[in-house]
Amino acid sequence: MVSAPLDTLERPAGNKERLRLWIRLLRAARSIEGELRERLRREFNSTLPRFDVMAALYRAPDGMLMSDLSRFLLVSNGNVTGIVDRLVGDGHASRAAREGDRRTSIVRLTDTGRAFFLEMADAHERWIAEFLGEVGEDDVKRLSTMLKTFRSNWEGEH
Amino acid sequence: MVSAPLDTLERPAGNKERLRLWIRLLRAARSIEGELRERLRREFNSTLPRFDVMAALYRAPDGMLMSDLSRFLLVSNGNVTGIVDRLVGDGHASRAAREGDRRTSIVRLTDTGRAFFLEMADAHERWIAEFLGEVGEDDVKRLSTMLKTFRSNWEGEH
Repeated sequence: MVSAPLDTLERPAGNKERLRLWIRLLRAARSIEGELRERLRREFNSTLPRFDVMAALYRAPDGMLMSDLSRFLLVSNGNVTGIVDRLVGDGHASRAAREGDRRTSIVRLTDTGRAFFLEMADAHERWIAEFLGEVGEDDVKRLSTMLKTFRSNWEGEH
Repeated sequence: MVSAPLDTLERPAGNKERLRLWIRLLRAARSIEGELRERLRREFNSTLPRFDVMAALYRAPDGMLMSDLSRFLLVSNGNVTGIVDRLVGDGHASRAAREGDRRTSIVRLTDTGRAFFLEMADAHERWIAEFLGEVGEDDVKRLSTMLKTFRSNWEGEH
């Protein structure tokens, strides 16, 4: 393990501020996620990973390969197969073998699934507007622009 | 399930902007968390929940009851008992029965554990400064203040 010695002289004063910002950002994200999870469960008997899968499928009306769906949702850590099984069982999605290749299947939302997703997405948007309601229009734009760009300086390093 | 009809006329224009902000905030938080997880593993053979437990214990030099530790870390979803077992096994924490009550135990960091945590915390602070390095000082303060207050409008509703 290699680690620099603690040397406050070498540490820019802004580091503590950035650490505080990160902790607050993480708390805010977890808190909003927790509230979304609770409301999706209560009002739609659904979950966040299921919402994410439906959102991905909604944007792909021709359907998605299971493998692409898994890769796309890597970050949400959900069990895509289990989620799709449940969606198919609920009549919200259908699964069909791809032409000429029986090993992979294509998943798409049914009409019922699309309507159900739209209802959830509408509620989701209203909830977010409620949670972030205190943030003024100017700050929303400023923050959004900042968050769009600030990741570039470390991503892709390894 | 009760849900309002889709009616774009009733929806403030800022809702879409707020939704976009939330998605970017979530992505940024997940992306930073993923990078932290990877670096803690690589450089300290550790994990985020373990880091959180050590941080809580570091701030309580007299030790914490297992029950308080579990409650404190509820949000991180870690298995506190497993984490503490591992810390004790590594010599980073000790566990002792509370005086007069053999059913609950008090956990505290050892000197080795405190030194190890300080090394991790130092690296963690530098990493965050690196990730958020593109955000200017003024924006850091502005954002931090905003995130400190904006949760109050929905929390505690249920």
